[in-house]
Amino acid sequence: MKISSTDARARQKAVKVLHERFSEIAIKILKGEEPRLIIPKRTLSNTIYDAERKLLLLGTDTFERSFLDVRESRKFMQTLLMASIIYEALVNNEYPTIRDLYYRGKHTIRYRDHRGKIVEENTWDEQKESDSVLRDIEVFTNLLREEMLILSKEKGKVVGDMRIRSGDDLIDLSKMGHGAYAIEPTPDLIEFVDVNAEFVLVVEKDAVFQQLHRAGFWRKYKAILITSAGQPDRATRRFVRRLNEELGLPIYVLTDADPYGWYIYSVFKIGSITLSYESERLATPKARFLGVSMTDIFGDKETRKKPYLSEKERRNFIIKAKKTDLKRAQELKSYEWFKTPKWKKELKIFMLKKSKLEIEALTGKGLKFLMDIYIPQKIMFGDWID
Amino acid sequence: MKISSTDARARQKAVKVLHERFSEIAIKILKGEEPRLIIPKRTLSNTIYDAERKLLLLGTDTFERSFLDVRESRKFMQTLLMASIIYEALVNNEYPTIRDLYYRGKHTIRYRDHRGKIVEENTWDEQKESDSVLRDIEVFTNLLREEMLILSKEKGKVVGDMRIRSGDDLIDLSKMGHGAYAIEPTPDLIEFVDVNAEFVLVVEKDAVFQQLHRAGFWRKYKAILITSAGQPDRATRRFVRRLNEELGLPIYVLTDADPYGWYIYSVFKIGSITLSYESERLATPKARFLGVSMTDIFGDKETRKKPYLSEKERRNFIIKAKKTDLKRAQELKSYEWFKTPKWKKELKIFMLKKSKLEIEALTGKGLKFLMDIYIPQKIMFGDWID
Repeated sequence: MKISSTDARARQKAVKVLHERFSEIAIKILKGEEPRLIIPKRTLSNTIYDAERKLLLLGTDTFERSFLDVRESRKFMQTLLMASIIYEALVNNEYPTIRDLYYRGKHTIRYRDHRGKIVEENTWDEQKESDSVLRDIEVFTNLLREEMLILSKEKGKVVGDMRIRSGDDLIDLSKMGHGAYAIEPTPDLIEFVDVNAEFVLVVEKDAVFQQLHRAGFWRKYKAILITSAGQPDRATRRFVRRLNEELGLPIYVLTDADPYGWYIYSVFKIGSITLSYESERLATPKARFLGVSMTDIFGDKETRKKPYLSEKERRNFIIKAKKTDLKRAQELKSYEWFKTPKWKKELKIFMLKKSKLEIEALTGKGLKFLMDIYIPQKIMFGDWID
Repeated sequence: MKISSTDARARQKAVKVLHERFSEIAIKILKGEEPRLIIPKRTLSNTIYDAERKLLLLGTDTFERSFLDVRESRKFMQTLLMASIIYEALVNNEYPTIRDLYYRGKHTIRYRDHRGKIVEENTWDEQKESDSVLRDIEVFTNLLREEMLILSKEKGKVVGDMRIRSGDDLIDLSKMGHGAYAIEPTPDLIEFVDVNAEFVLVVEKDAVFQQLHRAGFWRKYKAILITSAGQPDRATRRFVRRLNEELGLPIYVLTDADPYGWYIYSVFKIGSITLSYESERLATPKARFLGVSMTDIFGDKETRKKPYLSEKERRNFIIKAKKTDLKRAQELKSYEWFKTPKWKKELKIFMLKKSKLEIEALTGKGLKFLMDIYIPQKIMFGDWID
């Protein structure tokens, strides 16, 4: 098996951290002390929105997982089982997925209970359980799963005038023909070699990405063009964050005008609520929502903004919001980071008009409209939401 | 807008064909004749399984769409509307998606009926309608949508020791680092420059593709490694077909052991039932089902095949089939191409054991098991289903 040198280094680092963190347990056992783990709490009550850094973060609460407490010994066993599987995979040059980890650990333990009866118990029954334990290990070791060479499916694609090094290869992202570069599942191992771009455009929809790419958008406007192909996965989020943080490129996110699209933007910018511990690495607090916004569709009397659609186009293109859309919009309204004046206005128009719009409605007006009018104008005039 | 020379040539060809096929209509009108279209029928009854060529094909039945027949004039109008939108997009260097085409054509026609009353009618209400018309145009012109530069989202990825030309770029598919090459939506425009591989492995699951890629599978075994990331899209199917047909590479498909996975294989090999007119270009009749098969899991007394899983592994890894799985398996049993002895046996074991298995259960045994034992052994001993 030929392993890239980047991977070999990443393995060494993860092995070292895992060894350090978990040898504490072994030392305790050898000393005759009670083995226990102190792990940051991943509960909603310990999830804090840091308004200054514009990030969802884990608070300082921790909990103890003790082997000798009957209520916790199962979880304790699961945590050590998972850590050992990951460790084994690392030293054996394996690349497990979270589904693998579930299968690798799944087995039945037979033991004699205090009455002398033989009892059977499964290490875990569902992947939900093994995933939860993996998250505990991530916060306990402060290693993301990607740093432990745990792979996952990946949907994100990128093209643009940029060279990167991945594995042992130098890759020119401007030489992908009509295709694109599919981002690797461990984007922290990518090295940015050089870049010739002024901003990053992240498009929710793969089909729109294909169109803009094919029409030469990124070349004409000096952009790095990315698609998340729907809800962004971790690798795409991390890749976008690195483009912003390390290269200083502004990030513009283009989604459908509906609560689902706005939430995609929110995941890029703030992080996901259930996995707040990742935000510090995966979120891009400076990401800007380029559109499609409600004021793009209907205009805005207050700021004298003209709509991008005519009355007739609105009639043909607008889709009536469903109940689930309205419910989702209500939820968004309750999030701190949607309580800015601009977002309040967006959500208010949405609730009032009960209307949504797809990006494709804009390309329905012509790809040139999207490419040469809508996107460049919005960027030039600062018509985004921060 | 900078357009690649490949695209420019493709446009010219499509414009020419559309012009030829539809100018017949104009000529008829100018002659005072009734304008009508004769289109191959896309009905199930006109879908034929060609057992020799191992393909789903359209039969010879056609139907007439006449402008002067009240029952057909709406469909006639839709067909000409769609053709004109596609034509416009072609000459204007646009790259519409099928969603765009729907939006572009969607508008309300106002007219006075025979009683003198003003009536309003929408060109189409749902994308289902415009998609159906697009398919009519595909069979009428014998041009696939991709040849008319209609784009779509694309999930397929590829890596391997192979050079291709796409657009104006030469792309080395062996230099993608840990990432991959995302196949373009118009794979007929790809030029195969040179290839150094002995077979193609198509993996249903992106996460398994990532693992095999990372561990160097394609380099070690001289393979072109592809993932369809679930149900294959048209571009991935066409790309696989071309690898088989033009380069003579054998194609092995690796899916989960369940009716859903088997159907993915079937779409690669035979084509999809609802879109049989595409099969002649998109299907790969010589594709082989590598696994995971029921006899891989349970062995086969008849052929003395040993199972790849131990009793204990079966206990831990097997998932109980759901009602929908059993129903789907019943459907598969009714398809001609699943009536071979090997498939009959597979489906019989499945119905008997009511058990399914994911590929990840094999990587749960270790990635080396999947990479260095399971796949190479199955290929070496011809243990696939044709």
